[in-house]
Amino acid sequence: MSHPFLVGLIGAGVGPSLTPPLHMGEARALGLTYVYRTIDLPTLGLPAEAVGDLLEQGRRLGYDAFNVTHPCKQLVLQHLDEVDPRAAALGAVNTVLLRDGRLVGHNTDVTGFATAFTTGLPDASTEDVVLLGAGGAGSAVADALLGLGTAHLTVVDVDDARAQALAGDLAARYPDARVSAASAAKLPALLPDASGLVHCTPTGMADHPGLPLDDRLLHPGLWVADIVYRPLETELLTAARAAGCRTLDGGHMAVHQAVDAFRLITGVEPDPDRMLRHFRVLAADEPRP
Amino acid sequence: MSHPFLVGLIGAGVGPSLTPPLHMGEARALGLTYVYRTIDLPTLGLPAEAVGDLLEQGRRLGYDAFNVTHPCKQLVLQHLDEVDPRAAALGAVNTVLLRDGRLVGHNTDVTGFATAFTTGLPDASTEDVVLLGAGGAGSAVADALLGLGTAHLTVVDVDDARAQALAGDLAARYPDARVSAASAAKLPALLPDASGLVHCTPTGMADHPGLPLDDRLLHPGLWVADIVYRPLETELLTAARAAGCRTLDGGHMAVHQAVDAFRLITGVEPDPDRMLRHFRVLAADEPRP
Repeated sequence: MSHPFLVGLIGAGVGPSLTPPLHMGEARALGLTYVYRTIDLPTLGLPAEAVGDLLEQGRRLGYDAFNVTHPCKQLVLQHLDEVDPRAAALGAVNTVLLRDGRLVGHNTDVTGFATAFTTGLPDASTEDVVLLGAGGAGSAVADALLGLGTAHLTVVDVDDARAQALAGDLAARYPDARVSAASAAKLPALLPDASGLVHCTPTGMADHPGLPLDDRLLHPGLWVADIVYRPLETELLTAARAAGCRTLDGGHMAVHQAVDAFRLITGVEPDPDRMLRHFRVLAADEPRP
Repeated sequence: MSHPFLVGLIGAGVGPSLTPPLHMGEARALGLTYVYRTIDLPTLGLPAEAVGDLLEQGRRLGYDAFNVTHPCKQLVLQHLDEVDPRAAALGAVNTVLLRDGRLVGHNTDVTGFATAFTTGLPDASTEDVVLLGAGGAGSAVADALLGLGTAHLTVVDVDDARAQALAGDLAARYPDARVSAASAAKLPALLPDASGLVHCTPTGMADHPGLPLDDRLLHPGLWVADIVYRPLETELLTAARAAGCRTLDGGHMAVHQAVDAFRLITGVEPDPDRMLRHFRVLAADEPRP
């Protein structure tokens, strides 16, 4: 019998996550024994700072790996023995492997978005990309976009200081690219010339309905990628398609970060198309608000 | 997808235990996802008293159940929310279920030996049984034998005080039976009239080779049950068969305690014959000293 895998997801609000059935379904299709548990901090009455203790307990209790999500992706770093250089540069880890008793951090949000983008929007121009949202997800997506050779990236956030901080950090790490920050009020000036828009704020999620920008700014020369995946079909994507844009829904990034995590954890190559199909079934089965 | 099960074995020296592959093999045959981990106290540098913390950590990390073995079967009791009455009377627990956040203790050593005995030595007389070894295993076996209606049980141990303490405890709990204690020197007087002998000391294990008693005391009117299962074929069983005794090897108890634990944990009825066959394959594959 091959090694039976034990994996957990540490974070807040992870109870209804689709990641456990996504991983376990793929493992089953591959003939692997694979248990994936959610470890929800609020349910356990634990603060985000407990992530270090949970990793240590997981080491004792035979866990192979953890996915780590909000609010622990930065906090977890100080508890690791080793961090993948790209995750370290980003300052965020979403996957921790327990290897020979050592905790090794990776970030598959970055690699996951990169694969989602190149496979889901093939040949999309990265000449001039606007990134809306400079939080944790936006940071990972920015890293992926610059790693893919984006020539000009403009970081926009309702919090100007946050946009400027991220742009400054990115400019230092990607000296060959042009990285700017802009306030949301500048979107009408930015989008007409932009080749693409990536949306990384919570707007459009089931509990934050609405559009993150004026849909009159959307035009056929713009591709639009949303990282929101609950629901998969956001108001932004509906409006973008109506405006003639090529679009990429958030399911692609959600699945490809899981694909990359699954490969790191198991050493086995998963089938991304099967995981995408499975993800869409899982997402369609979700209770709607 | 049915519930994926996560189970651990807490104890000292549990690394090479056959119980994990036994449970996981049966689960696989039943189409269940089931991960069973060993949590070896010496490997982790933990004392036996850590069992309470490990249970609590297992609760946080999504464990469904633990098997508990030496040296934690008694210590674990104080950490449980509820204990099966028979396990409580015995003062030893080998299976802990986590149900709705509560820790519930059971003892499948008792039920496992009872089933092993009734199925492996059908119609064997329980008129006059000698129990050799008054430790934890002996205590559980004694409970099973008296629960099956043994009329006269004689507890023998190299430690006279330990034999007397167990006999006194059993006599109080089974007032309808006759329970005696005797020193090992009395075996030549006890065995000629006995209907059965159960061996519950470590003698005969791979690292304690030898016979636990003079083989000239064995006779065709005596059945002999060994609870040692590493190796399955002990010197005692070889000598007993040569003397014309009916015999029961330790694999039966090992498997039936696992059958009962598996049923408690999953709520699914395992196939004891399949588990017995699997156990014999696993035992045959073990490295020999």
